[in-house]
Amino acid sequence: MGKGEASRHRILCTGLDLASERGLSNVTLGELSTRAAMSKSGLFAHFKSKDDLQIKLLEAAEVALVEHVLAPCAALPAGVPQLRCAVDRWFVWAQSAGLRGGCPLYAAAFELDDVPGPVREYLLQRHEVWIGILIGLLDDAVVEGQLSTDTDTAQVAFELEGIYLSHHLARRFTGDPDALQRAARAVDALLARHTPTDPEDPT
Amino acid sequence: MGKGEASRHRILCTGLDLASERGLSNVTLGELSTRAAMSKSGLFAHFKSKDDLQIKLLEAAEVALVEHVLAPCAALPAGVPQLRCAVDRWFVWAQSAGLRGGCPLYAAAFELDDVPGPVREYLLQRHEVWIGILIGLLDDAVVEGQLSTDTDTAQVAFELEGIYLSHHLARRFTGDPDALQRAARAVDALLARHTPTDPEDPT
Repeated sequence: MGKGEASRHRILCTGLDLASERGLSNVTLGELSTRAAMSKSGLFAHFKSKDDLQIKLLEAAEVALVEHVLAPCAALPAGVPQLRCAVDRWFVWAQSAGLRGGCPLYAAAFELDDVPGPVREYLLQRHEVWIGILIGLLDDAVVEGQLSTDTDTAQVAFELEGIYLSHHLARRFTGDPDALQRAARAVDALLARHTPTDPEDPT
Repeated sequence: MGKGEASRHRILCTGLDLASERGLSNVTLGELSTRAAMSKSGLFAHFKSKDDLQIKLLEAAEVALVEHVLAPCAALPAGVPQLRCAVDRWFVWAQSAGLRGGCPLYAAAFELDDVPGPVREYLLQRHEVWIGILIGLLDDAVVEGQLSTDTDTAQVAFELEGIYLSHHLARRFTGDPDALQRAARAVDALLARHTPTDPEDPT
């Protein structure tokens, strides 16, 4: 990693941590230059604007999400094993990635839901990709006969996202010590609802 | 309504709309004085500080929530009828209340999850009351024999909150036209999971 790349990496890590704690809109070039102990002009060398910086932060968050959630599950059998692995890791990925303030991606989605602009557009596209990945994992489970053939996988993804958000709130906001257990119970029930009662392969 | 009270009411309505669109932390005395076409000193006559203003806004949001969600259901039979009425209205309450940017209470919970201080403390207390109300409605349904006696009503409330949040995101962020239908389907399935298979009163 060259000097420029290393400094860029340091800025992104600091910014991601800040976004995770205070929200994306509080990651200004001014605040970040203080936290990363760099001059504002030094930051401008790496990012063209506040929007550009925020998009780069979301990009970095997604890289971390893929690394902590999807990559470790890729070698597992397709279908429910991969899905469960990914969902379990998804729920705790912000901690695994060392972010002190919870998932910056969903926090940004709530923050930007009514704020039009390029950052929202970018996040919306990436959210679509993420939901597409979840649906893909669920579709695999249908193909494998682990979920019923009539499963509405987009509906299940919608409900999984809800459990994720409720867990986020219970963990970060109310500090419920049972948050993860409640989320796991909800996921179990959701998958059980779609498990064939008369599977082709009952082993 | 006296002149002072009317002006206070106007400030709160403007502020609530602003909070709903841009998030609570963007409701500063400066921004609000511009939107409400009042001097900053005029605002200071009503609110002691930014924190005080934000707490009053959350208070006003809760009054609107009660008015639009709970009050219209109070005369219905206890249990599932009241619960369904409240949940259906909860999902769309921000629109019913004329807020352009979705529920300011849950948006604030995501915004403040890692921001300690009196506003977060206040919201946390009110959130506990709200979840207590949901659990109370579910408990009534258990007493009425409409939900199984072994229903973990706190778990069901956790899952209902998740469906609410997923709906919020689908509606406000991704603009999914099926958001409400998906949410209704999820609520149906959640209640069905806890409906006694052998009810005492099978009518």
